[in-house]
Amino acid sequence: MGTKLDELRARLAEISDLGRARALLDWDQRTQMPAAGAETRAEQLATLAQIRHRRLIADELGALLDAAAAEVDAEPYDSVEASLVRVARREWEKARRVPAELRAEITRVASLAEHAWVGFREHSDFAGFLPHLERIIELRRRYAECFDGFEGFEHAYDPLLDDFEPGMTTAEVHAVLAELRDGVRPLVAEVAAQPGSVDDFCLYGEFDLDAQQTLAREVVAGLPLQADAWRLDPTVHPFATAISPVDIRITTRFDPGYLGTALWSVIHEAGHALYENGLARELWRSPLCSPPSLAFHESQSRMWEIWVGRGRPYLERLLPRLRELFGENFGAVGAEDLYRAANRIEPSLIRVEADQVTYNLHIAIRFELEVELFEGRLEPAELPEAWSSRTAEYLGLEVPDDASGVLQDVHWAGGAFGYFPTYSLGNVIAAQIWDVATGELPELESQISAGELAPLGDWLRDRLYRHGAKLMPKEMLEKLVGGPIDVAPYLRQLRERAAEIYGI
Amino acid sequence: MGTKLDELRARLAEISDLGRARALLDWDQRTQMPAAGAETRAEQLATLAQIRHRRLIADELGALLDAAAAEVDAEPYDSVEASLVRVARREWEKARRVPAELRAEITRVASLAEHAWVGFREHSDFAGFLPHLERIIELRRRYAECFDGFEGFEHAYDPLLDDFEPGMTTAEVHAVLAELRDGVRPLVAEVAAQPGSVDDFCLYGEFDLDAQQTLAREVVAGLPLQADAWRLDPTVHPFATAISPVDIRITTRFDPGYLGTALWSVIHEAGHALYENGLARELWRSPLCSPPSLAFHESQSRMWEIWVGRGRPYLERLLPRLRELFGENFGAVGAEDLYRAANRIEPSLIRVEADQVTYNLHIAIRFELEVELFEGRLEPAELPEAWSSRTAEYLGLEVPDDASGVLQDVHWAGGAFGYFPTYSLGNVIAAQIWDVATGELPELESQISAGELAPLGDWLRDRLYRHGAKLMPKEMLEKLVGGPIDVAPYLRQLRERAAEIYGI
Repeated sequence: MGTKLDELRARLAEISDLGRARALLDWDQRTQMPAAGAETRAEQLATLAQIRHRRLIADELGALLDAAAAEVDAEPYDSVEASLVRVARREWEKARRVPAELRAEITRVASLAEHAWVGFREHSDFAGFLPHLERIIELRRRYAECFDGFEGFEHAYDPLLDDFEPGMTTAEVHAVLAELRDGVRPLVAEVAAQPGSVDDFCLYGEFDLDAQQTLAREVVAGLPLQADAWRLDPTVHPFATAISPVDIRITTRFDPGYLGTALWSVIHEAGHALYENGLARELWRSPLCSPPSLAFHESQSRMWEIWVGRGRPYLERLLPRLRELFGENFGAVGAEDLYRAANRIEPSLIRVEADQVTYNLHIAIRFELEVELFEGRLEPAELPEAWSSRTAEYLGLEVPDDASGVLQDVHWAGGAFGYFPTYSLGNVIAAQIWDVATGELPELESQISAGELAPLGDWLRDRLYRHGAKLMPKEMLEKLVGGPIDVAPYLRQLRERAAEIYGI
Repeated sequence: MGTKLDELRARLAEISDLGRARALLDWDQRTQMPAAGAETRAEQLATLAQIRHRRLIADELGALLDAAAAEVDAEPYDSVEASLVRVARREWEKARRVPAELRAEITRVASLAEHAWVGFREHSDFAGFLPHLERIIELRRRYAECFDGFEGFEHAYDPLLDDFEPGMTTAEVHAVLAELRDGVRPLVAEVAAQPGSVDDFCLYGEFDLDAQQTLAREVVAGLPLQADAWRLDPTVHPFATAISPVDIRITTRFDPGYLGTALWSVIHEAGHALYENGLARELWRSPLCSPPSLAFHESQSRMWEIWVGRGRPYLERLLPRLRELFGENFGAVGAEDLYRAANRIEPSLIRVEADQVTYNLHIAIRFELEVELFEGRLEPAELPEAWSSRTAEYLGLEVPDDASGVLQDVHWAGGAFGYFPTYSLGNVIAAQIWDVATGELPELESQISAGELAPLGDWLRDRLYRHGAKLMPKEMLEKLVGGPIDVAPYLRQLRERAAEIYGI
C-alpha cells in the first residue's frame, strides 16, 4: 500500500482519537465530574470539537483523500482500504458544506435551549420554550439548505436524517414508519379489547439499590462482552459510549421503586456495547469504527433487550436469581408471570416508559411532526395541538400538559431533528436480523435457557459487528438479511409475543 | 485591550484545554478505565499531546506573542496581561528548542522503560534495566543540549531542572540541598542517640476499608476546599490532578494494615488540590493557571500534610473520630501518643515511606547522583554502588538489593531527571511560608484545634494561590516571604518538633 493511504490513516486516527477523548469527557461529566466543573468542562468539550472539526474539513485531508483514492482504485468495494477512503470522503464533503459560523451558532443555541428546556419542562411552559425551539428549527433549516444539490438528497429533511442514517431518504423512512404505525395500531386495539389485564406488580416495590447494582453487573457479565473491556456506572439518563472498542462505558439508572429500569435498560445499553466491542481491530481509530448508522446501533440494543432480555428463556433462567436478591417480590411469581410482566402492552404518554409495541406510535408522532415542520406545513407554535391530536389518534390518550407531551424529550431542544425515526428503524432491523439469527442458530432458545449467550454473540460479531461502517446501512442490511428494510418480520414478532400473552 | 492579545488568549486557552483533557484521560486511566483499554488509551494520550505540542510551537503563536507583547508594553510586570505574554513566550521558546523527533523518541523510550522497570524492580535486576536507563539518560543529555545558549542556563542539568523549577539553577539547588543535608544529618544522629523509641503501633492493625474511605472523605471535606469541586478515588500511586480549578481529582491508596496512608497521603494530595482550587479565575485556561513550579506545588502538599495534618492541634481534634471509626486501635491512645506516632523519625530505605526528616536525605542522594550523571562524572552502570555508598553515608543503612535501592522509584525510568530535588525544595519553601503564616495568623493553633481551617486557607489563597504562575518561583517567594529561599526555617521547625518528641 502506498504512502498517501498511510498518511490518510494517520490523519483519520487523530480525528478519531479527538472524538473518543471528547466521548470520555462527556461520559465523565455525566457520571463522575464534581458539579462545579460544568462550565470549564463545556469549554473543554467545545475545544476538542472545534479542533476535531477543523482537522476534518482541512484542505489537506481532501488532497489526501484524492491521492489515496487513486491508490485503492483496484481494491474490492468492501475492503477496509476502499471503504475507508469512500466513507471518509463522504464525511469530509458533508462537513465542508456547513459554514463554521452556522455550526458554532447551532452548538451555542442548542446548548442554551437544552439548558432552558429543563426549567420549561418542569413548569410545563411551552410558550416560554417556544422562542428557543423556533430559533433551533430555523438554524436546522439553514443547516439543511447547506446541502442543496448533495447527491441523493431530495427532501428538506433528508440532510438531517442522513446525519444519523446515511443514505436513507425521508420518503423511504416515511413509507416504513407509516406501514409500521398502521400495523401496530390494530394490534394495540386487539390487546386493549381483551378482557382482564396483565399484572406487572412484581416489578414494582422496594428494591435495595445495592442488590440492583449486583443484578445489573451480573446481567452485563452474563452477556458475551469482553470481560475486562467495560464498566457500569449510575447516571440520570442511561447511555453507553465507547472510548474505544475495548473501553466501553455502560450507564444505567436505578429506580428504588421499579426493577425494570436496572434490568432492561442495562441489557439495552449493553447491546450497544456488544456492537462496539465487536468492531474489527483493523477498523479501530478510523471512521469505519462504528455501526453503519444509529438504526443499526439501536437494532442491537433492542434485540438484546427485547428479543433476548424480555424473552421467556432468559427470564426463566433469571428468576431464581431475582428471588435470591429480591425475595419478597418474586417469591410467589412464576416464570410465566415474569414473562407476562416484562411484555405488558398498554398505551402511555411518556416515550421512555412505553412498552415495545406502543413505543413505535410515539416515534411515528415525532417523525411525522418533524417532517411537517421541515416541509413548512407546521409551525413550531402549533406543535402542542398537533401533538395532542396525534396522541389522541394513535394512542387514544389525552395529553394533560405539555410536560407529558411535546416537552417530554430533550432531542428537539438539542437540535437533534432526524434522530427519533432511528429508534423505530432499529426495531424493524432488529426483527429482520433476529429472524436470520434464529434461523441459523436452531439451538438458540435452549442456549439462552442455559445462559449460553456466546453463540449468538459470535454469530452477530461475525455477521454484523466486525464490519463496522464499511458498508452503507442499506448495503449492510442487504448483505446480512438478503433484502431491503421490511416491516413484516417485526410486526409478526410483536404479534406472536402479544398472542402468547394476551391470547389474541 | 487590543485584538492580538485576545487572539493570543484564545490560542492559549485551546492549548490549555488540550492539556486538561489529557489530564482527565490520564486520571481516568489510573482510576476508572477497564484494563483492556490501556493500548487505545495510550494512543489517545499521544494524539492529544502531539496536537497540543504542535499548537504550542506554531510560528503563528510566535507572531501573536510578538504582536501582543507590543500591546501589553505599558502593563505592570505582574499584571495578568504582561505575565501571560512573558510566561507563554518562555514556554514557546523552550518548546521550539527540541526537535519533534527527539521529543517523540524520549516519549517512546520512556514509555518502554517505565513498562520494563516494573518487572526489573520486581526481580531486583539492575543489569537488566541498565540498557533502558542508559538510553533514556543519553536522550535526556541530548535534550539538555538543545538548550545551548538559552538565557540563564549554565549547567548541563539546568534545562532538566528548569522544566520543573523555572529559573532555578543547578548551582542554587546544590547549595540549598547541601545545607539541608548537612543540617538534617546531625538532627537524625541526635534522635538516634536518644534512649528508648517512639511507638507508632496505633497506626498499624486491621483497618476496615469502608471506615478508611469515610475518614479520608471527612478529612478532605474538613479542609477549606470548595465543596462541589473535588472527588476522591482509590488508585495504586496516589496523586492529585486538576481537570480545572473547580474540577479536582484527589486519589489515594488504602492500606488495610496501616492507617497513615489514607490519612496523611490524602491531606498531602488535598494540599495540591487547595492550590489548584485557589487559582484566580482570570488565570483559568492560560499557562498562568498553575503554581509557579513543582516546588511551590509541593510546598502546599507538605505544609498541609506535615505542619497542619501531623501537628498537635489537628491530631487532638481528630482523635475522637479515629476512636469512633477504629475503636480498637485508638481506645487507649492519647493525643500526645498520636502526635508522637505521626512524627516518628527513623532512617529507612524506601523514600515514599520515609518520615519528614530523613526524607530529605533520600532526595539528597538522588539529586547528587543525577547531577553527577549529567556532569559525566558518573556512569549509569555505577549507580547501584554509588547509591549504596551514599545510603550508608547519609542514612546509615545497608542496601540489601536494588529493588530497595536504585530501582525503587519510577522517575528515572520515565526520564524525569530534575524532578526529585523539587520535593525537598518544596519542604524548604513550605517552612518559609509557614513561618509567615503563623506570624500573621496568631490564632492559627486554636483555629486548627477548633477545626477552623478556613482562615489559613483564605490567607494562602490571597497571598499565594490566586497568583498562579504570574511570577517566576524566585519572584513569588520574594513577594510572599520577603527574601530568597532559605533552609533555616525548615531546619528550625524540624528540630523544634523533634525536640518535643525526642527531648533532644
